[in-house]
Amino acid sequence: MNRLHVVKIGGNIVDDVDKLNHFLTEFAKIEGSKILIHGGGKIATSLAEKMGIEQTMVNGRRITDAQTLEIVTMVYVGLINKKIVAKLQSLSCNALGLCGADGNLIKSHKRTGANIDYGFVGDVDLVNQRLLNQLLDQEVVPIIAPITHDQKGTLLNTNADTVAQEVACAMASIYDTTLIYSFEKEGVLLDVNDEDSVISKLDLDYYNDLKSAGKIFAGMIPKLDNAFMAIEKGLKSVIIGNADHLDMLITGIKGTTIG
Amino acid sequence: MNRLHVVKIGGNIVDDVDKLNHFLTEFAKIEGSKILIHGGGKIATSLAEKMGIEQTMVNGRRITDAQTLEIVTMVYVGLINKKIVAKLQSLSCNALGLCGADGNLIKSHKRTGANIDYGFVGDVDLVNQRLLNQLLDQEVVPIIAPITHDQKGTLLNTNADTVAQEVACAMASIYDTTLIYSFEKEGVLLDVNDEDSVISKLDLDYYNDLKSAGKIFAGMIPKLDNAFMAIEKGLKSVIIGNADHLDMLITGIKGTTIG
Repeated sequence: MNRLHVVKIGGNIVDDVDKLNHFLTEFAKIEGSKILIHGGGKIATSLAEKMGIEQTMVNGRRITDAQTLEIVTMVYVGLINKKIVAKLQSLSCNALGLCGADGNLIKSHKRTGANIDYGFVGDVDLVNQRLLNQLLDQEVVPIIAPITHDQKGTLLNTNADTVAQEVACAMASIYDTTLIYSFEKEGVLLDVNDEDSVISKLDLDYYNDLKSAGKIFAGMIPKLDNAFMAIEKGLKSVIIGNADHLDMLITGIKGTTIG
Repeated sequence: MNRLHVVKIGGNIVDDVDKLNHFLTEFAKIEGSKILIHGGGKIATSLAEKMGIEQTMVNGRRITDAQTLEIVTMVYVGLINKKIVAKLQSLSCNALGLCGADGNLIKSHKRTGANIDYGFVGDVDLVNQRLLNQLLDQEVVPIIAPITHDQKGTLLNTNADTVAQEVACAMASIYDTTLIYSFEKEGVLLDVNDEDSVISKLDLDYYNDLKSAGKIFAGMIPKLDNAFMAIEKGLKSVIIGNADHLDMLITGIKGTTIG
């Protein structure tokens, strides 16, 4: 099987032009097939403020009403995605931007049943493996914004970590797939206040021990649960670490390798 | 050669949800290969107003400064393109949205040499025929927003009529290509105040006669000059007419057929 790197880049990196450009330069150098999924950053929030659209947060999560959906679509798919694509094209990386509606790439459904109505938020049903495979065969590099659709004409805001995991898992049956979560932290830390305490290898037993001992930072738990679920679904490995040294994450010198 | 319809939809239609949905329903029904290019409409202007960004117009043309480029990219590629794609997907039309940076679809250069600096405005150098052909082979329907790139990392605002013409001409060597400009008028009118005075067939001699006699509405001349240039470059025909009855434009019952 050919190798495939599926890389998720966090919102904090997207907000910092220098960090983003450095990251994209390293991303462009990855050999073989690759896919990038990007988050949103703070631009959507500041655009909403400028437009006087109030953002409702419930339990730390943004409610995506109709106006907010328009804003995140404009910012994620219009602004951020195309800036990334144009930059990668300038680095001779044949990037092509997509959201989940394009070519029916990611079909989702509006989240229901929760006590809270999160609005236009989508949970993923299906990733179009065939489309991604065709693009990769043509040496195109898909750059995916986390907006999906319900195939009934409605766009839906979707968690970018989840999109990355679903995309990686969908490709795992035809590619030797590694999923990389790159963000502003060095990896999974044994001591949340010490960036030098990175756990370099984390398997399920060790994870469960650490979790029981209360040693895993709460904000990291959904990411790690996702990562272990992805391994179960056939991924080779999941790597978590700092976007500043993507090259060293891939070679396993830095970050946390899960699996 | 297989048939290809390249359809441009004007900004006024994009602004009207009902008209747009009717148009897209008819577009989805076109048999064989097809490509849609859409304009911008008034949403970009109203967003700029809401954000307090002043728009500079010179000789009736918008100057695309850095902030305006961000706005048109967000609105054209983010909002309008993805609404169209999601709607078409709901109609079982396998639409996939692109701007000129995606897969290096449309390489352009920043307009220079004019007495006026139009800002981030691009004139087209090259359309990636190979990418469009690969997508059409996979029965994907490309939906193109009129934002191009210079391959050096800069996005450029580009006239949608020109994009449509360049795309159609690029495909004419491998497809039996018809270009359709659909907008809010019935076609080329003999009397600008009478929508019933549509000229159904217009060849170059007749056009030159009408132009000499001052009978062609000034605003129509760039569109028609473009159309005749496209015929010269190998297009089968160019059709101009009302987006409300796209089906009848294609069959030649309504609108003006040029060529």
